[in-house]
Amino acid sequence: MRIKLFDQHFQQAMQVLDQKTKPPRSLGQLESIAAQVSAIQQSLTPDASLARALIFAADHGITASGVSAYPQEVTRQMLLNFAAGGAAINAICHSNQIDLEVINTGVIGEPVPGTVDAKIADGTANMLQAPAMTDAQYLMAIQAGRDAVTRAQEQGISLITVGEMGIGNTTAAAAIVAALCNTSGAMSTGRGTGLDDEGLQHKQQVVEQLLQLYPSREAADVLRCMGGFEIAALCGAMLQCTESKTILVVDGYITTAAALCAVSIDDSVKPHLIFAHQSAEPGHLIALNHLKVTPLLTLDMRLGEGSGAALAVPLIRSAVAILNDMATFESAGVAQEKN
Amino acid sequence: MRIKLFDQHFQQAMQVLDQKTKPPRSLGQLESIAAQVSAIQQSLTPDASLARALIFAADHGITASGVSAYPQEVTRQMLLNFAAGGAAINAICHSNQIDLEVINTGVIGEPVPGTVDAKIADGTANMLQAPAMTDAQYLMAIQAGRDAVTRAQEQGISLITVGEMGIGNTTAAAAIVAALCNTSGAMSTGRGTGLDDEGLQHKQQVVEQLLQLYPSREAADVLRCMGGFEIAALCGAMLQCTESKTILVVDGYITTAAALCAVSIDDSVKPHLIFAHQSAEPGHLIALNHLKVTPLLTLDMRLGEGSGAALAVPLIRSAVAILNDMATFESAGVAQEKN
Repeated sequence: MRIKLFDQHFQQAMQVLDQKTKPPRSLGQLESIAAQVSAIQQSLTPDASLARALIFAADHGITASGVSAYPQEVTRQMLLNFAAGGAAINAICHSNQIDLEVINTGVIGEPVPGTVDAKIADGTANMLQAPAMTDAQYLMAIQAGRDAVTRAQEQGISLITVGEMGIGNTTAAAAIVAALCNTSGAMSTGRGTGLDDEGLQHKQQVVEQLLQLYPSREAADVLRCMGGFEIAALCGAMLQCTESKTILVVDGYITTAAALCAVSIDDSVKPHLIFAHQSAEPGHLIALNHLKVTPLLTLDMRLGEGSGAALAVPLIRSAVAILNDMATFESAGVAQEKN
Repeated sequence: MRIKLFDQHFQQAMQVLDQKTKPPRSLGQLESIAAQVSAIQQSLTPDASLARALIFAADHGITASGVSAYPQEVTRQMLLNFAAGGAAINAICHSNQIDLEVINTGVIGEPVPGTVDAKIADGTANMLQAPAMTDAQYLMAIQAGRDAVTRAQEQGISLITVGEMGIGNTTAAAAIVAALCNTSGAMSTGRGTGLDDEGLQHKQQVVEQLLQLYPSREAADVLRCMGGFEIAALCGAMLQCTESKTILVVDGYITTAAALCAVSIDDSVKPHLIFAHQSAEPGHLIALNHLKVTPLLTLDMRLGEGSGAALAVPLIRSAVAILNDMATFESAGVAQEKN
């Protein structure tokens, strides 16, 4: 029923777009994005002016097993960098008039001023030894994501983008993608921030071990046992979108792993999601294909921290502007096709 | 020599980017765009704040031979639509803080207030009967493009995007692409604004006829005999970039046909060009491959009027912001890779 209502609004918006002064559908993906935003907001004059990037950060116990090219301390150092305004996501948000909120869901150490303190624990458990999260921790992480979306909505934000920071989290994402897309760890595991051949092989073995250790393929189990606090929070943010009529822009590999979980838990989440870009991480395409979605950008990026999602914001705003601002053939006195 | 200087500046910018707080090259195409802008401006703190879209418009005599799904009058009607602010390019420019200048290089009828009057004639000749332009007209069109870039530069514009409007101009572009990329009219000719199968077949035959009628494969001859006023002006704008150290963003099929001409006339033009998107028009990929360039966007668009080029502006501004605004590993106290 909800999906049917979405389809009705979507088709209505496409009809409006077909009256605009351009050959029908000649703006390609931009038109379907405009119709999607219109349908989610249930408005033929949708709004995407106030955008916020939500960046969830947490540490991962699995880093003790040597799965990343960078030391674990970098998670905290990057949190400080976000707060000081020096990271890529700061530059991209500033350049594109996007508000930035960084949510600490489990970074080792003291709270970091300038970030939202929603810390659940000093990192997840090493999931080779125990599930990444306890039941209680998992629910807290989901709630941290829901809260961030509610907060944004209360503050008048009409467009939410998401991203993450957490050394070790491509290992968690690879395990989730393999489990939910029914593929192997070898297929879903990439070099992350820059592993060499030996490091990649080890990481693939770790993911294979995890898949055997946690045989349930229920999304909530997969996410709790092999995820991370920030990935569960991302999933929570996506689940909240159905309640707040919000469009949420998904970033790269890790956020797409969270999207796999969210859509598996509640399939009415999917129409709320816009997929920003196809990352250079090889497992990302597997996840995108599984979700049957086509991202807006392919820029060979593999940074994470919401950088790709933020880059999609001006495209979405342009799509909305086309629906809102263009003249029709009739209003502009422009002749239509000959036949 | 000029190319060597470009390469030096480009490499210098890449070295600066490698010190920023991100895994090396993890921002993909965004990093090469930043380095390209840096190299053209010969500055490690380049600027892309003030952007202008130049839209060149003209009519085409070849429309008398039935090559378009829309009547010729639409060129003028769309010029009025641009001036009134109702077209897609108006919405996209407004949404992305891009200034818009529409230059009339040969639209049938009286001057249109709100557009730059650089009219050469009431459309080109029907190139099935005579070359599209006389020598004098060709030079005037080239100059109109050069003048627009000079004007922009004098007004402090640091980023120029280009586009076009002219019913019939995909036929001209298809002839140019076939001639300069050494392919057939069947390969380079698409449906334009929306021809049916019969219309497409006819258009392909027209292009084949043109290729036999004008056997010279010198870019200037090809452009003069089978181009259009707006396409020659686009070529002129690109040629001017080498003199004004300007980056120019190329749009879709027609502007890429102009780029083929410009690069063939002066190969030092190429580093000044950023290719915005891959159009749905099939010949576009042939032209892009011939130029050995990868566009930033693939959104299944086929509108023209500079819409794709304008959409690339926020990506370019974001790329520049990364170079200018990000912290380094050292300044932010972030650890680098383990080995």
